[in-house]
Amino acid sequence: EIVALCAEQFASHALTGRHVVISAGPTREAVDPVRYLSNHSSGKMGFALAEACAEAGARVTLIAGPVNLATPDRVQRIDVVSARDMQAACELAVTDAVAAVGAEQSVFIATAAVADYRPAQVAEQKIKKGDKDDEITLTLVKNPDIVAGIAARAERPLVMGFAAETHAVEAYAQDKLARKKLDLIACNDVSRADIGFQSDDNAMTVFWPMGDGVGRADLAKASKAQIARQLVQLLADRLSSAGA
Amino acid sequence: EIVALCAEQFASHALTGRHVVISAGPTREAVDPVRYLSNHSSGKMGFALAEACAEAGARVTLIAGPVNLATPDRVQRIDVVSARDMQAACELAVTDAVAAVGAEQSVFIATAAVADYRPAQVAEQKIKKGDKDDEITLTLVKNPDIVAGIAARAERPLVMGFAAETHAVEAYAQDKLARKKLDLIACNDVSRADIGFQSDDNAMTVFWPMGDGVGRADLAKASKAQIARQLVQLLADRLSSAGA
Repeated sequence: EIVALCAEQFASHALTGRHVVISAGPTREAVDPVRYLSNHSSGKMGFALAEACAEAGARVTLIAGPVNLATPDRVQRIDVVSARDMQAACELAVTDAVAAVGAEQSVFIATAAVADYRPAQVAEQKIKKGDKDDEITLTLVKNPDIVAGIAARAERPLVMGFAAETHAVEAYAQDKLARKKLDLIACNDVSRADIGFQSDDNAMTVFWPMGDGVGRADLAKASKAQIARQLVQLLADRLSSAGA
Repeated sequence: EIVALCAEQFASHALTGRHVVISAGPTREAVDPVRYLSNHSSGKMGFALAEACAEAGARVTLIAGPVNLATPDRVQRIDVVSARDMQAACELAVTDAVAAVGAEQSVFIATAAVADYRPAQVAEQKIKKGDKDDEITLTLVKNPDIVAGIAARAERPLVMGFAAETHAVEAYAQDKLARKKLDLIACNDVSRADIGFQSDDNAMTVFWPMGDGVGRADLAKASKAQIARQLVQLLADRLSSAGA
């Protein structure tokens, strides 16, 4: 009952009038019709964030890679497969959001584990294993950087990135925050078995630019739903501080 | 009621006293802690076969790659990730089956979409995307051939393979049947949108060695559960014909 009451309280208005676009899950990059490259990502953190943003009053568009999760209530979901499909869907959704409510009221949250690289060529037929081909090489080319592209727009939403790393987590995250000109970055150490990919729990550190330095919030291990609500609060704080 | 009656009839004894080991689903081959190579495979056909074999009275061990499916009743399930893990689990399960009921009473059904190749080296840390690395190459090495290994045993179970192809389906399947010394092979054209990977339906052609030629059965498009029951009947016929 207390939880329900808290949820009710929380469901207040932190993001009322905002339009939030969230990318979630992995992408799959075809090698041929049967093989693909992908990343570990359950999509749970992105879906929890979509739910928390809707609870907080935002209109939410969720761009999802291949995951096995139910769509949260009051969330518009668009399913995609590859990084380039995800980019097209995110670009369009952000453009629509900015057109509908203005850049200052728009938010883009990039939780998806987008494949950095894709095979340079996609074979139209299944590649056959030759008896003599004990070793083959696959040439990979860089995929578009979705979050950096949206953060570089003239009329840009507030942009929050994610960094899942296995070492030097905080240093990479702060570098990514500055390099991609993000407003916030949430990072976690996916080499920890108790949080991360398939887990229902998470623990994150969040950074944002503050004067010449960075602001910081440490979110202790909790359910992904609880972490999502804390991230929504940090987002709402950044939106207020931007004067929007 | 009629369906239940048919199921009851079918649940007779076609495989009573047999021990069937089935591999199902895809495998995932790690590139680094977050990236992997995989194949499209829902695992549905393998799980349907495990269910049909159990219904037909067999003891069933199901070796499953990463899939989102419930374990059928009366089926022992072992979860694996990579092709090498799958090979180890299949080899062990077949050895146990042969020890328990004898080679003539044992069956190995290889429905898994095993990755033919895996990255030559697995990075211990997440590979970072360099600003200048517009193109990278991934060296892949051949994975073990699980079904050929089991078919090559001195004390071997009856072995049924699967071939999912996008062109020249029947020619490849017959070649695989002979080359890997299988007792049966079931093949389908996964380039057809109405059957295959994620579909609940399937249509298959089955071949087996018969004198100097090959026997053949064409299973018309039907649910994977119905196709599974027809495959069990073909298996039972081969077991009888082998005099077991």
